[in-house]
Amino acid sequence: MKNNKITSLFEIEYPLIQAGMIWTSGWKLASAVSNAGGLGIIGAGSMYPEVLKEHLQKCKKATHKPFGVNVPLLYPDIEEIMKIIVEEEVKIVFTSAGNPKTWTKFLQEKGIKVAHVVSSVKFALKSEEAGVDAIVAEGFEAGGHNGREETTTMTLIPMIKQKTTLPIIAAGGIATGRGMLAAMVLGADAVQIGTRFVMTPEASCHQNFKNTIKEIPDDGTLSTLKEVVPTRLIKNKFFEEVMTHYANNGKREELIELIGRARPKKGMFEGDIEEGELQIGQIGGLIDEIKPAKEVVEEIITDFEKAKQEMANFSF
Amino acid sequence: MKNNKITSLFEIEYPLIQAGMIWTSGWKLASAVSNAGGLGIIGAGSMYPEVLKEHLQKCKKATHKPFGVNVPLLYPDIEEIMKIIVEEEVKIVFTSAGNPKTWTKFLQEKGIKVAHVVSSVKFALKSEEAGVDAIVAEGFEAGGHNGREETTTMTLIPMIKQKTTLPIIAAGGIATGRGMLAAMVLGADAVQIGTRFVMTPEASCHQNFKNTIKEIPDDGTLSTLKEVVPTRLIKNKFFEEVMTHYANNGKREELIELIGRARPKKGMFEGDIEEGELQIGQIGGLIDEIKPAKEVVEEIITDFEKAKQEMANFSF
Repeated sequence: MKNNKITSLFEIEYPLIQAGMIWTSGWKLASAVSNAGGLGIIGAGSMYPEVLKEHLQKCKKATHKPFGVNVPLLYPDIEEIMKIIVEEEVKIVFTSAGNPKTWTKFLQEKGIKVAHVVSSVKFALKSEEAGVDAIVAEGFEAGGHNGREETTTMTLIPMIKQKTTLPIIAAGGIATGRGMLAAMVLGADAVQIGTRFVMTPEASCHQNFKNTIKEIPDDGTLSTLKEVVPTRLIKNKFFEEVMTHYANNGKREELIELIGRARPKKGMFEGDIEEGELQIGQIGGLIDEIKPAKEVVEEIITDFEKAKQEMANFSF
Repeated sequence: MKNNKITSLFEIEYPLIQAGMIWTSGWKLASAVSNAGGLGIIGAGSMYPEVLKEHLQKCKKATHKPFGVNVPLLYPDIEEIMKIIVEEEVKIVFTSAGNPKTWTKFLQEKGIKVAHVVSSVKFALKSEEAGVDAIVAEGFEAGGHNGREETTTMTLIPMIKQKTTLPIIAAGGIATGRGMLAAMVLGADAVQIGTRFVMTPEASCHQNFKNTIKEIPDDGTLSTLKEVVPTRLIKNKFFEEVMTHYANNGKREELIELIGRARPKKGMFEGDIEEGELQIGQIGGLIDEIKPAKEVVEEIITDFEKAKQEMANFSF
């Protein structure tokens, strides 16, 4: 794999990264993916600093392979989080939702590799200026927070590739080996996969949430809440309340009140699939099976190789 | 090419179809693409019946290869359009924006192959029931009218592939051989390309429109007008007026009045790039060169083959 920029950078077997998702990506999922040859990532976004510390310590016991942490840069206790990351000798940090200049140099000086999540060419170039080691280019089809540009993976990857020489990790809409191969054909060096890893026993989100994803159709999600932060949600009762808010031309403050403080936790972690906020990617419509993370990794890699063979035999 | 469902179906050399775009896809563009080995399509959506008739007659003189016509099924003079299609012995019709059951059998009884454009699994299955020969699965990144589901090409193709055995033509976000290969890796049998063919001298849209596309960045378009019909537009002055309408919680009737009757013609055909409605795909951000349709086809096919070779050398 020496000819792949991302496996060389992170010293992993496959250019396959598991997304650090809130309420979902704890030490169990991250260590299982890393042990299987991918890069597991712990999602710090939903963890108090002491909870993150515990996950890091457990993850190091569960795997000797590299793993990373995803840190939303708007996190309120960000200094405390970064201190713990350094103390616990984390080697890889994925940053998102903020300015990549603020923490990149600090982390790199500690020997930590940094990737930053972007949804546009502009922020890819800002990340390059900030000196990041790689960028995650995330398309509109991704779960959770989306870029306001609404640029999809199919168009974002080539447009970013045209403007930067940084290693590119494609994210959004990828759940299979075919999706992985397609993203790499478009110009990505690796892929980040979220939704598919939600559907594993190791994911710490609630079983009700996983069961809901099994059932959603191709149009089971929509990106909404644009006045606050664009977020892709499953169309449940809470989602319908948001739609009613819009139909009534409700005010932004009312929307913020409707969302409240703990909607994502209520839905994804506590399993209230009607009142909770359920964040998942569009590709959730393709997935109807829960299986161990190791099997998911193996299946994706096998499927990737098979698709590659099929395409090689394709002729005009 | 006997092993490709679409080249067999339409008797063409490459599984590459040029979209039948309003104000853009006349006989010049369609015949140039067909002569180059793809499938050229005349866009009837912006043509009066007698204008379509003239384009069909000119197209038959300009090429002996197969070409098609795109017909939006909500077209007011639809009976007249279908009568002309039969009289002029058109062999291939792409239908969109309507119920595929209404015209499919009628056309097939005349020996015409029918493909229907869909943006969801539900309409893919309705098209299958209606007996169409192929479906065009069009993602959210496409120009012009978008599906309300906002499902992207990356996720739509595998989700439709999972549910139907019909030949699939992927559309939305594809402008290069790499994009074409990626779509086929995802499960498509062929691709339909619009935006790239707008940027040819043969496209009948205005030069000002083409020059504007050269300059747009990756986030130069957005899908809007959802209360009427979701449409992807370039962010010009007219677009900003639409945004102001939304910011002021304007009524639907006011939006319809703002759009008026002839905005697309004014922008795309007459070249008023500020007051006109400019429909283009997200991938417009990647394209900055106008070149003959034949060169576009050749470049895409060469690029496809090159990407295929590169992919074959990917190894873990």
